Amino acid sequence: MKVLVLNSGSSSIKYQFIETSTYSVLAKGQVERIGMDDAILTHVREDGDTVKISGEILDHNIAIEYVIAILLSKNHGVIKDKSEIEAVGHRVVHGGETFSDSVLITDEVIEKIRENIELAPLHNPHNLRGILACKRLLPDTPQVAVFDTAFHQKMPEYAFIYGLPYELYKKYKIRRYGFHGTSHRYVSKRASEILGLPIEQLRIITAHLGNGCSMSAVKFGVSIDTTMGFTPLEGLLMGTRSGDLDPAVILYIMSKEGLTMSEINALLNKHSGLLGISGVSSDMREIISEMKNGNQRAKLAFEVFCYRIKKYIGAYAAAMGGVDAIVFTAGIGENSPDVRKKVCEGLEFLGIKIDDEKNDSPEKEKIITTDDSKVKVLVIPTNEELVIALDTAEIVSKSKVMAEK
Amino acid sequence: MKVLVLNSGSSSIKYQFIETSTYSVLAKGQVERIGMDDAILTHVREDGDTVKISGEILDHNIAIEYVIAILLSKNHGVIKDKSEIEAVGHRVVHGGETFSDSVLITDEVIEKIRENIELAPLHNPHNLRGILACKRLLPDTPQVAVFDTAFHQKMPEYAFIYGLPYELYKKYKIRRYGFHGTSHRYVSKRASEILGLPIEQLRIITAHLGNGCSMSAVKFGVSIDTTMGFTPLEGLLMGTRSGDLDPAVILYIMSKEGLTMSEINALLNKHSGLLGISGVSSDMREIISEMKNGNQRAKLAFEVFCYRIKKYIGAYAAAMGGVDAIVFTAGIGENSPDVRKKVCEGLEFLGIKIDDEKNDSPEKEKIITTDDSKVKVLVIPTNEELVIALDTAEIVSKSKVMAEK
Repeated sequence: MKVLVLNSGSSSIKYQFIETSTYSVLAKGQVERIGMDDAILTHVREDGDTVKISGEILDHNIAIEYVIAILLSKNHGVIKDKSEIEAVGHRVVHGGETFSDSVLITDEVIEKIRENIELAPLHNPHNLRGILACKRLLPDTPQVAVFDTAFHQKMPEYAFIYGLPYELYKKYKIRRYGFHGTSHRYVSKRASEILGLPIEQLRIITAHLGNGCSMSAVKFGVSIDTTMGFTPLEGLLMGTRSGDLDPAVILYIMSKEGLTMSEINALLNKHSGLLGISGVSSDMREIISEMKNGNQRAKLAFEVFCYRIKKYIGAYAAAMGGVDAIVFTAGIGENSPDVRKKVCEGLEFLGIKIDDEKNDSPEKEKIITTDDSKVKVLVIPTNEELVIALDTAEIVSKSKVMAEK
Repeated sequence: MKVLVLNSGSSSIKYQFIETSTYSVLAKGQVERIGMDDAILTHVREDGDTVKISGEILDHNIAIEYVIAILLSKNHGVIKDKSEIEAVGHRVVHGGETFSDSVLITDEVIEKIRENIELAPLHNPHNLRGILACKRLLPDTPQVAVFDTAFHQKMPEYAFIYGLPYELYKKYKIRRYGFHGTSHRYVSKRASEILGLPIEQLRIITAHLGNGCSMSAVKFGVSIDTTMGFTPLEGLLMGTRSGDLDPAVILYIMSKEGLTMSEINALLNKHSGLLGISGVSSDMREIISEMKNGNQRAKLAFEVFCYRIKKYIGAYAAAMGGVDAIVFTAGIGENSPDVRKKVCEGLEFLGIKIDDEKNDSPEKEKIITTDDSKVKVLVIPTNEELVIALDTAEIVSKSKVMAEK
């Protein structure tokens, strides 16, 4: 099935057009600077043909019109008729407690996504804009929503409840949700394929280390805990986000510095993390390069980053009663042998033996432990778009079968 | 040496009068409701003789006058002359980055404790009041300060730095300090004695579970990490404190409920934790009894409490490259076999085998793992007063030797 995968942000839309039977990305691209008169569409076809189009793109409707037009274009396109877009799969950030799986989009589903806006005010409204635009532009094409939070919705209550008055959970749904679910789901499933063992028998710790970072404890195929919480601020150290923090520190900083809530929010989300500690960069490549040049604060940022991951590996092994495999994915996870090595240092007692040569090798998808390592450590490039496309194809096929019955 | 140990709070002073050569508590007691006209002094002598005196005790000076008087009393006392109080040991909550060990109190030390008031505004001023009162009442008696934070001052920087702009550490000393240091120090040392192995060879995880709860990773005698942070709010679930929390949740609650900073502070410190989740009690005994009666929220509170401890055991094992012993101490740690059992459930992969019979036995100090358990789990009653007395005796003896030279 040919599926258009859309990730609609506030001022950008990323897309991939995927043939799910062959996993081929027929075309992909993005629209940036939506709302400006110098918006840019960058479109890359499978054969490498690339085109950039600049112009006024005032809203998500027009942006998606552009995307459909370029897919149909004589010179740069990959289809001849709109109907060849057999389905659209949308990334939606927050499914709240409503969605624990991907779902065919109906009016009711749209309403529920709208209800969850409160939980993700920076993301869900834009995701919704993409959905509504597609509904208008491709009225006969089935659409599917794939949620960042869904994979974590089977967590046991003791793992998602905070130590707060329970009424706050009832009243505002304040609890751990977790994010990056599509990525954790994909790489844990892929790990079981690579290891040739059923996921129902594996306890896997997945570390999605990109600009945002999160880890998940995937026990027998189910995410039973994850580091991000009510929001993506909790847990690991990230590019510019603080991660875990003494709650009292926030109030202390606010009162000392006289900050408003939006100022402290900006401080914790945009000026903290690797950038805050190092004072140099939010980019792990620069942190490592600075560290190797002798910069002590870059070294500290690197150490804090790796130490937190190491601690969560221990915590999640304890949560699952052991661990069989650890997966590194996303920008840093896939590309930084230094981080992987530092994280796994001292974890020999868990049965982890890193093979430095494999860790340093240029392969993209690989096992980096020795053959006799009890716990396998893997590097797996994440592919959220593919998961969205496959979910979409599966759900649309099923719904067609149901409709024919 | 006969040492008077004082723990001065805002409206109460607890004391023990200890003979350090025999570890005997010659007398102990407390003054409560200081500042009121119906303050109470309760005094218990080693032989069981007990007396309660009620009266107007307006400040810490008068309270300590009462304590000295009762120690000297003909009917209830244990000494004949003030000079028999050979030294005074004070519990001081916050030593900041200044004190990594107990210290003989001088004017300079008093000044430094005063400088750290900012870090512990609810505790250090009262600790200081006790010190100044003793200076006035026992001008010739040496005094020692023993800090709750000191044992954790050797933590590596990557374990104590938060993911915040580094300037906030420089400017306000915002970092992880940790508390209950005297208890973690005592029980880890005691564990090495019980196991008959030098502490320099042991990786011990200590769990101080009282009304406040904290854990510490004690590697070769040094606390290399601990769950409490800048304040005692971080980490484990406690009686009424939230422990770890997505930082963004605080701002969300403040804005949703329109809370001031002092209101959110009260919510997180006084209405959260076991009490907040269960809605029933902050006392683990009641939580367990309610749970056994089928109360689902009490069960949830119990599960969250134990799950967090379990995760930190894994995290600290990872931080130390393995674990040799785990110690449970303080009210809940010493007295709840249910908590100990639940926490250790599923940790067999670390080499932990609980012996249910030993876990349930009435002994106070014991090993509760099977003989072939690779990791030893111990229950050790904490004794912070004894540590304070021993530190005091040691420092005072040394300073006398130095003075004589």
